[in-house]
Amino acid sequence: MPVPIFSTGIVWLKGEGPRSDIVMSSRVRLARNFAGFPFVNRCKRTDRSQVLDLAKRHLLDLQLSPQLLWIELIGLPQLERSLLVERHLISTQHSKGEEPRAVAVSTPDETLSIMVNEEDHLRIQVIRSGLALSEAFEQIDAIDDRIEDRIDFAYSPRFGYLTACPTNVGTGIRVSVMLHLPGLRITGEIEKVKRAAESMCLAVRGFYGEGSEAVGDFFQLSNQTTLGKSERAVLQDFEHRIIPKIIEYERLARRSLMEKRRHILEDQVFRALGTLRYARQLKADEALQLLSLARLGVHCGLLPDVNPSTINELILLVQSAHLQKAIRREIDQAERRIERARLVRSRIGAPQT
Amino acid sequence: MPVPIFSTGIVWLKGEGPRSDIVMSSRVRLARNFAGFPFVNRCKRTDRSQVLDLAKRHLLDLQLSPQLLWIELIGLPQLERSLLVERHLISTQHSKGEEPRAVAVSTPDETLSIMVNEEDHLRIQVIRSGLALSEAFEQIDAIDDRIEDRIDFAYSPRFGYLTACPTNVGTGIRVSVMLHLPGLRITGEIEKVKRAAESMCLAVRGFYGEGSEAVGDFFQLSNQTTLGKSERAVLQDFEHRIIPKIIEYERLARRSLMEKRRHILEDQVFRALGTLRYARQLKADEALQLLSLARLGVHCGLLPDVNPSTINELILLVQSAHLQKAIRREIDQAERRIERARLVRSRIGAPQT
Repeated sequence: MPVPIFSTGIVWLKGEGPRSDIVMSSRVRLARNFAGFPFVNRCKRTDRSQVLDLAKRHLLDLQLSPQLLWIELIGLPQLERSLLVERHLISTQHSKGEEPRAVAVSTPDETLSIMVNEEDHLRIQVIRSGLALSEAFEQIDAIDDRIEDRIDFAYSPRFGYLTACPTNVGTGIRVSVMLHLPGLRITGEIEKVKRAAESMCLAVRGFYGEGSEAVGDFFQLSNQTTLGKSERAVLQDFEHRIIPKIIEYERLARRSLMEKRRHILEDQVFRALGTLRYARQLKADEALQLLSLARLGVHCGLLPDVNPSTINELILLVQSAHLQKAIRREIDQAERRIERARLVRSRIGAPQT
Repeated sequence: MPVPIFSTGIVWLKGEGPRSDIVMSSRVRLARNFAGFPFVNRCKRTDRSQVLDLAKRHLLDLQLSPQLLWIELIGLPQLERSLLVERHLISTQHSKGEEPRAVAVSTPDETLSIMVNEEDHLRIQVIRSGLALSEAFEQIDAIDDRIEDRIDFAYSPRFGYLTACPTNVGTGIRVSVMLHLPGLRITGEIEKVKRAAESMCLAVRGFYGEGSEAVGDFFQLSNQTTLGKSERAVLQDFEHRIIPKIIEYERLARRSLMEKRRHILEDQVFRALGTLRYARQLKADEALQLLSLARLGVHCGLLPDVNPSTINELILLVQSAHLQKAIRREIDQAERRIERARLVRSRIGAPQT
């Protein structure tokens, strides 16, 4: 087992940090490529292996974190790969195929992960709890500098860092936040906000990033283009102008629900808690939707006895790979629904019956 | 307030008696008319008043029960009338209009009720918990004899007792049971059973009798014709042949669910309990449906901590008129939903939150 099933040390699950009632996590990632090697999609297997070896040697040697776990994906069972995807440590794309590839993960905090041979040679990611993009950026910037001391990155004085996909050329930076927007979904304003975000050239994605659907009112927002802007300019605009605006919309929606439709809101929140505590079968999507409502209830002060970090942890643990790791065997969908409900009950304090 | 909001003495709510896991209550009613008066639909107001006076004098004088409450419907507020309908003490038809009419009710057990000037001059009804038609019949037969000692009933040596509707001519008897058939609904066999019952000349009705829909898997089954059969023959056939067969079908359905689809059954039952304990708003039909599932769970042994009589009581108390009597004021539908959920939580032991 390359990573533990669940560590209370995972930073982005703590539900701490600024505005963590709405911002689950902040993430900064840099795309970097080694000079002298073709991009991954043009690489032969031997090139990929060389990149992998080079990355492994330097990354482990640099001691970028007290405990950096090196996980090669070749031969890794599907369940372990899914576990990494569910943890947001690797992309779905990176989890597929048998070409030489790896991910380095700082444990137990999991704030730093570096995918090797995904779309670019290196995809360095720092993730934080709440709205903490600047903090994440300072950390990733320092790490980037330290890696660049050892490895020559593909760089053009004119364009900046060169990347496999043109949208990443320049700074190679992507900043994103995972937002929890149940208020806007209930008031019916979520589509308007999504369109507004898209008109500001932001990508709006689901819980698992690129190509995934929104479940449980979780939306990942990220910048789309990086060329022609400095890292700090991208980040400032995102963190101090765009995201606060969306947070403000969600806050207004929640306030309006609490003031004008409190009975409806309470009913939805408490029914969700009741189902979480009593259901004997739960589908993954339904569980996330119920947890979303419970999370909303917690942050609106309706569920003072429910611990917000329990909800955040469950959002991770109800997912299929985590569930199967928790019970130590692979099970079919029908059994997963039963085990998922059992897990939820055991964590969220189902009473006597 | 003519009848108390809720009395723990109401016999048919106790959930006792034979086969009370499936048979909520057994009811026998006799249709009788006074000789020398037109049927009610042909009566002038003065005739109706005379019938009413005559009935009141004799019924109260006879001391048919230790405490017989005489309730006149003229001028009775709508809420009080609805309360009597919800208690199955009068028909919906009897609750409407301002012609002289009344109902006599034995309190606090409410086993005996006599509608005066409904479709017939007298509609005598005895209701019992569980499958206890013979017992109900013995009681009503004795009452009928005692009334007949005082009042001449319209009777033809050829046809028997004469009634306003030809289907009641003869014995004037109707026997009915309120069945709880959630197992057959879940297995999808309920329509088949209803058709079979109808082919045996039984009327299948909803929770509130004639013209009402089935809610919460409660079905009232009754005989349709009375002419040409003795009271005892009607009753024997119903109690010892037909109803036991339907009970057996329901038992088989429950057993099959417990053996082959236990996870699905448990999930439905516990979700229902969770919603009953947590919802902040409940519509009447939804409440009855959830209570039906909880009742099924109790009788399948899935909810050992839930008291079956609590469920039966709630089935009565969640109804609109009872709800409003309980909180001592008339409220609109939106507020009823909130108060209904509050009442259910307070009775069915919602835990801490």
